[in-house]
Amino acid sequence: MIDHPINLQNKLEKFSDHWSPKVIGEMNDYQFKLAKVQGDFIWHHHLDTDETFFVIKGMLTIEFKNSKVNIEEGEMFIVPKGVEHKPMATKECHIMIIEPKGVINTGNKMNSELKSDNDVWI
Amino acid sequence: MIDHPINLQNKLEKFSDHWSPKVIGEMNDYQFKLAKVQGDFIWHHHLDTDETFFVIKGMLTIEFKNSKVNIEEGEMFIVPKGVEHKPMATKECHIMIIEPKGVINTGNKMNSELKSDNDVWI
Repeated sequence: MIDHPINLQNKLEKFSDHWSPKVIGEMNDYQFKLAKVQGDFIWHHHLDTDETFFVIKGMLTIEFKNSKVNIEEGEMFIVPKGVEHKPMATKECHIMIIEPKGVINTGNKMNSELKSDNDVWI
Repeated sequence: MIDHPINLQNKLEKFSDHWSPKVIGEMNDYQFKLAKVQGDFIWHHHLDTDETFFVIKGMLTIEFKNSKVNIEEGEMFIVPKGVEHKPMATKECHIMIIEPKGVINTGNKMNSELKSDNDVWI
């Protein structure tokens, strides 16, 4: 068993690339991932799963087809499965993503250049 | 679809009782729950699931049979399924628990007076 807590700030110091989630923990078949984001991601959806965004620093905006939501530090948002969305952040923003292991960050857009490798642990 | 972010501090202001988790969000068949804790919980385990503790304020200690871990603000810890543990906090501590819907807070100790109702949303 891992015998020490997972410190989010310490983990965040280990990388600087954007839109490239790093795994920090696993609970059953779900993973906790940290990401630094800035600028626009792409429109996509996840057919099989909801996806949770927790903002650690800054503000994340998630655009939907007919609305958008601003998620600030200490706030979270759960995007329901199948809902088309586009994350974006004007300034660099640090987030934790919680979702099942194996979820592709670009969802149905498998050929996007923003598609990241899965299971990159830090 | 819920169209606003979930603000953890706002949710924490809605209750004051200890060891009584309140649901703030659902992702697939998992729930995010907030709890205020102080003093000792009971020894228990969850046979079927891991359990994640994220500390929002204060320090949570989780005792195991041969060790213990101190989890501070901004840190998380995932207790593996089947592992006997006893959460405790010397001073009031605010935590977020992430686990499958339906998990009983007292695990295998179904008759404990600390057993809470499930699905209490705030």
